[in-house]
Amino acid sequence: MSEIQKLGAILKEKKIRISGAESCTGGMVAAEITSVDGISAVFNESFVTYSNDSKHKNLGVSLETLEKFGAVSEECAREMAEGAAERSGADIAFSVTGIAGPTGGTKEKPVGTVCFGVFFKGKTVSTTAHFDGDREQVRKSSADFVIDMMISAIENS
Amino acid sequence: MSEIQKLGAILKEKKIRISGAESCTGGMVAAEITSVDGISAVFNESFVTYSNDSKHKNLGVSLETLEKFGAVSEECAREMAEGAAERSGADIAFSVTGIAGPTGGTKEKPVGTVCFGVFFKGKTVSTTAHFDGDREQVRKSSADFVIDMMISAIENS
Repeated sequence: MSEIQKLGAILKEKKIRISGAESCTGGMVAAEITSVDGISAVFNESFVTYSNDSKHKNLGVSLETLEKFGAVSEECAREMAEGAAERSGADIAFSVTGIAGPTGGTKEKPVGTVCFGVFFKGKTVSTTAHFDGDREQVRKSSADFVIDMMISAIENS
Repeated sequence: MSEIQKLGAILKEKKIRISGAESCTGGMVAAEITSVDGISAVFNESFVTYSNDSKHKNLGVSLETLEKFGAVSEECAREMAEGAAERSGADIAFSVTGIAGPTGGTKEKPVGTVCFGVFFKGKTVSTTAHFDGDREQVRKSSADFVIDMMISAIENS
């Protein structure tokens, strides 16, 4: 069973409602979640928030966070996940915000730098990972990574 | 060049800002759009609105439309596209709402029935298509279909 089928089965069995917020993955994670038959029982909506303005408007990420830490930061990822949970009423919410490339990298945050958040049961975990490869490989690795983060968050709760 | 690369090139060249609203495709189209390098110049956000409540809340689809015609209807697709354009301020906005299966089909709307909308330059086109195949095939066909609809809408405008 693939990881997304595993996550989908857990969500449906435990009736855990899910939502999320995606920047660099641009909907890939939501598309994977909705590949699971019958996921409508626990999935109402998700947010593709590519610009800073969209992260602020749709998820409530603070302008201060965006200015001080940038959109690709654990602080932003945390607020994105919490905003998605709050706005959707979901029990678990994920976020992905990173630099998929080929442009946009800096010395401090090179291409392949991706920050993640997972909100579950009132607690938010956020982390940073670095992936090799081209734009699509970074995006796919990011989607896989956050799906595993959610499985871990639920299994370890 | 793939259709999505073609659409991305047109959007970037003509500075046409894009948004959308996805139900059965669940983010696949937004994920394809964001596979294009540099699309951030014309893409701020998109909406994954799986439930009726989310379509109403995030896109302004009327409760009357949802009740009278259902979520899988050209009327709903039209309101989804117009709502995505309005809420995001985009120049072009697409919508996809359908029955990907394996369950959820009825005699009038069998599995594979998908409704689409494209708003561009103050005009909205909506249509219905029927696709064969399993859940993923219906979703992929739907994503391809609406990408072609957008290219046509721009080229024929």
